[in-house]
Amino acid sequence: MKDISGGVCAPKGFWAGGIRCGIKASARKPDLALIYSEQPCTAAAMYTGNRVKAASLIVSMEHLAGGTCRAVIANSGNANACTGEAGFAAARRMAELASDALSCRAGGPLRPEDTAVASTGVIGVPLPLRPIEQGIGALAASLRNDAAGHEAALEAIMTTDTRKKQGAVEFEIAGKPVRIGGMVKGSGMIHPNLATMLCFVTTDADICRPLLDSALRRAVKHSFNRVTIDGDTSTNDMILVMANGLAGNPSIQTEGADYAVFAAALESLCVGLARETARDGEGASKLVTVKVHGADDDADAELLAKTVASSNLVKAACFGADANWGRVLCAMGYSGADFDAEAVDVSFGGRAGHITVCRNGAFLSFSEEDAKRILSQDEIEIDIELNRERPGGPGPGKAEVWGCDLTYDYVKINGDYRT
Amino acid sequence: MKDISGGVCAPKGFWAGGIRCGIKASARKPDLALIYSEQPCTAAAMYTGNRVKAASLIVSMEHLAGGTCRAVIANSGNANACTGEAGFAAARRMAELASDALSCRAGGPLRPEDTAVASTGVIGVPLPLRPIEQGIGALAASLRNDAAGHEAALEAIMTTDTRKKQGAVEFEIAGKPVRIGGMVKGSGMIHPNLATMLCFVTTDADICRPLLDSALRRAVKHSFNRVTIDGDTSTNDMILVMANGLAGNPSIQTEGADYAVFAAALESLCVGLARETARDGEGASKLVTVKVHGADDDADAELLAKTVASSNLVKAACFGADANWGRVLCAMGYSGADFDAEAVDVSFGGRAGHITVCRNGAFLSFSEEDAKRILSQDEIEIDIELNRERPGGPGPGKAEVWGCDLTYDYVKINGDYRT
Repeated sequence: MKDISGGVCAPKGFWAGGIRCGIKASARKPDLALIYSEQPCTAAAMYTGNRVKAASLIVSMEHLAGGTCRAVIANSGNANACTGEAGFAAARRMAELASDALSCRAGGPLRPEDTAVASTGVIGVPLPLRPIEQGIGALAASLRNDAAGHEAALEAIMTTDTRKKQGAVEFEIAGKPVRIGGMVKGSGMIHPNLATMLCFVTTDADICRPLLDSALRRAVKHSFNRVTIDGDTSTNDMILVMANGLAGNPSIQTEGADYAVFAAALESLCVGLARETARDGEGASKLVTVKVHGADDDADAELLAKTVASSNLVKAACFGADANWGRVLCAMGYSGADFDAEAVDVSFGGRAGHITVCRNGAFLSFSEEDAKRILSQDEIEIDIELNRERPGGPGPGKAEVWGCDLTYDYVKINGDYRT
Repeated sequence: MKDISGGVCAPKGFWAGGIRCGIKASARKPDLALIYSEQPCTAAAMYTGNRVKAASLIVSMEHLAGGTCRAVIANSGNANACTGEAGFAAARRMAELASDALSCRAGGPLRPEDTAVASTGVIGVPLPLRPIEQGIGALAASLRNDAAGHEAALEAIMTTDTRKKQGAVEFEIAGKPVRIGGMVKGSGMIHPNLATMLCFVTTDADICRPLLDSALRRAVKHSFNRVTIDGDTSTNDMILVMANGLAGNPSIQTEGADYAVFAAALESLCVGLARETARDGEGASKLVTVKVHGADDDADAELLAKTVASSNLVKAACFGADANWGRVLCAMGYSGADFDAEAVDVSFGGRAGHITVCRNGAFLSFSEEDAKRILSQDEIEIDIELNRERPGGPGPGKAEVWGCDLTYDYVKINGDYRT
């Protein structure tokens, strides 16, 4: 498997674009994106676990219920959530506008249900349809099946994101090159579960719907469900994967070796996107990776890692490059997971080295200078060894979770997001 | 019932004091407090739910297991948590030093178990005993049974606290005046449950241990368990109430009218202390009260209110006086509580008025100017009406939770706490 360029346009037969239609107040920022497949796609998706779901999400659920999809339209600048009946009508209209505008390119009429809808931005403000109606024609005409098309679409779904979070991989199935590409937006309101962002993934693999779905669920479990930025699970989270089969591989219909290769590639791509999402957390200056080993099982390890990565006090200490490991133990203590506080070892690591700061749950003499240097890097690691003893060896449970530090900029960005 | 001055020294027969012994690096800040009762006390206490408990807490649990207590010694500047075996020895020694120093005043030897121990400060640093050994004599000699004694003790348990959180009330039981006084420290690592701070309450009421215990549990449920500052439940939380019986009221031995009066007074005092604790959250510029009405039951209402009050995004919006009610609905949505998103009304209120910003789960046209004025006050209220319909009327469940905003200063304080 190798990394390639082109994002969602790297797989064969996918086109993308983005324009500024006028939903965002800023006169310069693009706010409407479209991704389109030449051929009908098998589609799988996952949605936010938030009880309050955006209208766009609910409409996408309806449209994707059949497991097929041809396009996705997405706007930024407005979440179309908590917008009442008008919000549902607007989301349906968005899909209809996109399908209509793509019919010519598709060589025949597309149904509204062929298009998925996504929105991101402020909650509780009516979504203006006029800009979309006025812009959709130009957007459909602007689609490209190259890196520029991908980039235009990606830029149009970004809000407080400061980095372009994207990727694409190529691998072989039965001698045929197969590609998977993806983009993700998400910076605040990021917390498992789920994905807590918008993520669009394309592939030219030929794979049946049930296996595409199971590959997605597995990938998300080990990637986006292990990211936390601020503990707020959004109303708009959605990850969509579209497979158009144009790679020409023997169709993946069983959980055999081909499926395993595809699933591993999808997971690898999603892990990369998830890490980048954590790194680009609102206001973040550091990517913080929390690793837990030696737990009774993976679930306990994950709960511990997530609780530590979510702790405001741990996050603020990371910002301040302060080796305040007591906050790590404190967060573990209220996680609800089972562990023996007197057996825990904690280390901090990163490019500048690795230093153990707590042994058997108690203080250990260490060089504050070294710790400061390690924690001042833009990527830091908190390693937690639980040393659970079990018959036959150490506890097998482990997990890795990605988060970020809590900074002045987080407060600044979120103290006045709407204006 | 009336408010009186004097804090923990307001009830008859209680003495208190505080000195600087040298645990804190600062040469000016007091760090060792002592509270003492002339007469043996019935005692009840509650402790943190964190699995990682400070050594001082575990020693207090042992000493208070019999339900009696004569004194409490508390230090700030060091949490004596995650300090291994040495930490337990230090906590035991603290109690012993205090009991010894008080024996003369008590007119006879006190046992180490007569003294409870509490610590607050940095986790994971060995507690130095020398300063306590050197200072305890002067501290015991300095005790006073007046407001000055109370203040000295209170100042000695403060860390990042910026306000003196204290109170005392007087009421009558069978014609006898009875007093309850309290002090609390706590600013960061504040999250239910429990108390998430150190709180010492004294009373001259005559009340049996089981009823003192049940009154305390009821009071904490409606006060300290409804405060959230940063979602981090500390390792050192403890609330202790000591009752010495010197008021001379007919001893409260049953759950009758006298008990009800006492329990209500204790709860009222604790609610006041809890609100002040939220207001003095680390870096906080505003007290944020979240009220939920119309839920199926109080548990759902409390879960919703706590989740909203805990949301970093809601807290940052409060800091920025931004009427971003969508974040309120978003937090409700991931709370896990049962409610109908399409029925929710949200209002913001405070001294500058009251404004409804969301009706039936959707946007409502409102004056941004009015909302800004309301949210710019130092006390703001988020009112959530769930409008649950039930046979026979609206949902009866309600709850009130106190939190604070998320500010630059929170990040500043916690980015470099240890140095």
